[in-house]
Amino acid sequence: MEKQDYFKASLELHKKYKGKISVQPKFPVVTKDDLSMAYSPGVAEPCKEIHKSPETIWDYTNKQNTVAVVSDGSAVLGLGNIGAEASIPVMEGKALLFKKFAGIDAFPICLKTQNVDEIVNIVKNISPVFGGINLEDISAPRCFDVEAKLQDLGIPVFHDDQHGTAIVLLAALINACKVTGKNIEDLKIVVNGAGAAGVAITRMLRCINFDANICVAVKNIIVCDSKGIIHKERNDLNWIKQEILNYTNINNETGSVKDAIKNADVFIGVSVANLLNSDDIKTMAEKPIIFPMANPIPEIMPDDAYKGGAVIVGTGRSDFPNQVNNVLAFPGIFKGALKVKAKAITPKMKLAAAYALANCVKRPSKEKVIPYALDMEVVSKVSKAVANAYEE
Amino acid sequence: MEKQDYFKASLELHKKYKGKISVQPKFPVVTKDDLSMAYSPGVAEPCKEIHKSPETIWDYTNKQNTVAVVSDGSAVLGLGNIGAEASIPVMEGKALLFKKFAGIDAFPICLKTQNVDEIVNIVKNISPVFGGINLEDISAPRCFDVEAKLQDLGIPVFHDDQHGTAIVLLAALINACKVTGKNIEDLKIVVNGAGAAGVAITRMLRCINFDANICVAVKNIIVCDSKGIIHKERNDLNWIKQEILNYTNINNETGSVKDAIKNADVFIGVSVANLLNSDDIKTMAEKPIIFPMANPIPEIMPDDAYKGGAVIVGTGRSDFPNQVNNVLAFPGIFKGALKVKAKAITPKMKLAAAYALANCVKRPSKEKVIPYALDMEVVSKVSKAVANAYEE
Repeated sequence: MEKQDYFKASLELHKKYKGKISVQPKFPVVTKDDLSMAYSPGVAEPCKEIHKSPETIWDYTNKQNTVAVVSDGSAVLGLGNIGAEASIPVMEGKALLFKKFAGIDAFPICLKTQNVDEIVNIVKNISPVFGGINLEDISAPRCFDVEAKLQDLGIPVFHDDQHGTAIVLLAALINACKVTGKNIEDLKIVVNGAGAAGVAITRMLRCINFDANICVAVKNIIVCDSKGIIHKERNDLNWIKQEILNYTNINNETGSVKDAIKNADVFIGVSVANLLNSDDIKTMAEKPIIFPMANPIPEIMPDDAYKGGAVIVGTGRSDFPNQVNNVLAFPGIFKGALKVKAKAITPKMKLAAAYALANCVKRPSKEKVIPYALDMEVVSKVSKAVANAYEE
Repeated sequence: MEKQDYFKASLELHKKYKGKISVQPKFPVVTKDDLSMAYSPGVAEPCKEIHKSPETIWDYTNKQNTVAVVSDGSAVLGLGNIGAEASIPVMEGKALLFKKFAGIDAFPICLKTQNVDEIVNIVKNISPVFGGINLEDISAPRCFDVEAKLQDLGIPVFHDDQHGTAIVLLAALINACKVTGKNIEDLKIVVNGAGAAGVAITRMLRCINFDANICVAVKNIIVCDSKGIIHKERNDLNWIKQEILNYTNINNETGSVKDAIKNADVFIGVSVANLLNSDDIKTMAEKPIIFPMANPIPEIMPDDAYKGGAVIVGTGRSDFPNQVNNVLAFPGIFKGALKVKAKAITPKMKLAAAYALANCVKRPSKEKVIPYALDMEVVSKVSKAVANAYEE
């Protein structure tokens, strides 16, 4: 199907079904006895049990398999701040993916407020029925605040635009290093974009190996925003850009993104279309690894990147090889977290997810550093690794 | 099955299925093309449409069939204030009933806060995905405030413990009058209990006929609480009891509930077990109509009521005739309201529901003034009447 056809077909699909998810009973309720067990008077019994022993909520309710997909509609797909109502098709779609890939019951919570403290307060108050919270399409830098303020909730709170993207990207990068023979810690990496995904990728790359409490990190990362390289002399940086400056740009380089990628091993784009050309790629170090993930149009088209000498190219698109798609991460991450009733998704769990995902590709190659998005075996491997990595 | 067996069986059922509802896709998603239509990139199209034309939210999302079951767990079944977590089995059960009886997708929202303004703020902010809000098991008098403050939300907000009970009771009373030959407006009615149900019943009985803007009401209602008759000389009345005093107890009677029912035609109990005996019923007017709806043990057992001369007895229980069960009302009311995208459930719609429900019983008799709870034909009749009664 051609790209333009998706739009028309999608509209028709949404109109035909009037939305994408439904709520269904887990068992048939036919007789008076069925009703008396599922509802009054029998239902009083699990209520009393939970009141007496709060941990039985995991036995008697669907909390053990339920995730909220929470958005304020402030940063939806490539559409921007379209608000809660217009974001619903995306959140219903996310719920559908949760079910298809992980068997998880997810429900869209689309919030009219875009105030950080109000969002935090609402999520805390609606949390009882959920075993996890998937934050979605909340704009930076508010998304960092919202997530941070919810980490003591007692259930995992995970902003997928940040960590989902970072985990899948890291998996792809691990395999790209195998293919090119590069050592991940020694890479010079340029991240273009300092929003949710760019910041999360940077944070994750700086702290790759948590084993034995040793944090071995990618030493040389340069982050760029729309004004160019983020460096110490800039006085237009918001708090999150100031934070990442603490552990990036060790040589305090200045200039544009085109200056930054000179001699870089890796370019990671989570920003805008058509940023680079073949000649820019030619200025990079040997065997460049390029992840231009802007969607739908990448920072450089794969053909142009290859022309400039790129060895590995991964985009956000399904019509090119090496699609960096969050669906490879979030279903397994939540499935693993729910399995162990995790109170949070820790850095170790995220790292385990990235390595498990990388290992799903038996023989990494230039054309395949990451599994196909529809590979249904990924979720079980990722979920097991995530569950195993959890320590209360 | 015996009553005690329900409790054990219910616990086993809840443990076996770990909750009662799941979220399911409305259509299969198998191929890459399916994904591209249900999610990225195709999903951008319905998002853009809703952003451009907000009313298309009813065409492209499941809002048109989704109801939130909102509780703060402050007044759950006969269990009292057991909190959000312990209330979940009831709210999941309610969602299950919504599906079974009306095909509506309902989702439990169990809130940790019991602060009126916080509840109101949360419901407003989570409302985009819902076509209606069913408030449930929120204690009086807070429930009146919460509901009143949400009436401008633009979708129906309906506290079922109030209006569901009032509507079914009114339907039963309409038919009880047919059977006994009494005129509803001339009844002397005693309502025992001034909580959610008692107040809603009283409000509804005072204003039965809205046709042609004429409000013909039951003239003589006496409401009692745990201290006895609510009358003008009492100085311990909260605001809602003061309000109902404005249109009840026209003769300013004083005394206990046993004093109140002398010469009364109807006793409606929404309070506590074992309040009355046969001798009390003997003091009532001719052909007493008795609705002792305390659950699981009524204010007077049906056998004792009949011994005292009661002609019609209806309880909340399924093991006696004339079960006054909310499931006869809320599925049809929400189905009708969603059908016409109602902005509220108006008094006319409630009244229409009560009359439609009463008319579901072709030939009312002492043993059948109300349809069976599992009568699957009720919902379509009630929903049609409710939809027809809506005026924007």
